Amino acid sequence: MEKLAWMNLLYDFYGQLLTQRQQKFVELYYAHDLSLGEIAEQFGVSRQAVHDVLKRAEHILTRYEEKLGLVAKFMEQRRRLGEALSLLDENCSMNEETLSRVREILRAVMG
Amino acid sequence: MEKLAWMNLLYDFYGQLLTQRQQKFVELYYAHDLSLGEIAEQFGVSRQAVHDVLKRAEHILTRYEEKLGLVAKFMEQRRRLGEALSLLDENCSMNEETLSRVREILRAVMG
Repeated sequence: MEKLAWMNLLYDFYGQLLTQRQQKFVELYYAHDLSLGEIAEQFGVSRQAVHDVLKRAEHILTRYEEKLGLVAKFMEQRRRLGEALSLLDENCSMNEETLSRVREILRAVMG
Repeated sequence: MEKLAWMNLLYDFYGQLLTQRQQKFVELYYAHDLSLGEIAEQFGVSRQAVHDVLKRAEHILTRYEEKLGLVAKFMEQRRRLGEALSLLDENCSMNEETLSRVREILRAVMG
């Protein structure tokens, strides 16, 4: 998985454990794709300061995942549900409405 | 949900964020159903000390859930997958082997 997607997932799970400033910078950098310079300007700090906050936030999020492994567990669940969906698509005959409801549920859980 | 089941779930998700002693006491008390007195005796401490460690651990686990809400999210997923399973059981005709494989996957994900 790319670093960008991975950081966004980590942030989805553990972001609330960061300070408000760390949260803000991570959102702007990883979810809204702003550059270090743009964030620095917006907050009136140096690029280096933004860089340091982001590194610190990444370190914290990574440590939580190392301890708890909940993102890895979630990805494994997603893989399994994808497998269940494929099996249903290939092998199941049921009315279209039920099938679409089941698909909808599984997709919602897969996130 | 009963407190016992709830504490065991919280511990499954966030237990690794407790100290080793907190983990040990929570496991013995909530998962293995030892009494405060039995744990106290085993570790050579007072019943009150065991009680205090457990209260502190409960507080920490509860705080993490208040911040992250991952157990609540998991329970909602489980509810939804249960719904999908019911729909499949009622409406789906497919060969027995496939059905049992899909059921197995969904149950595994439901934990």
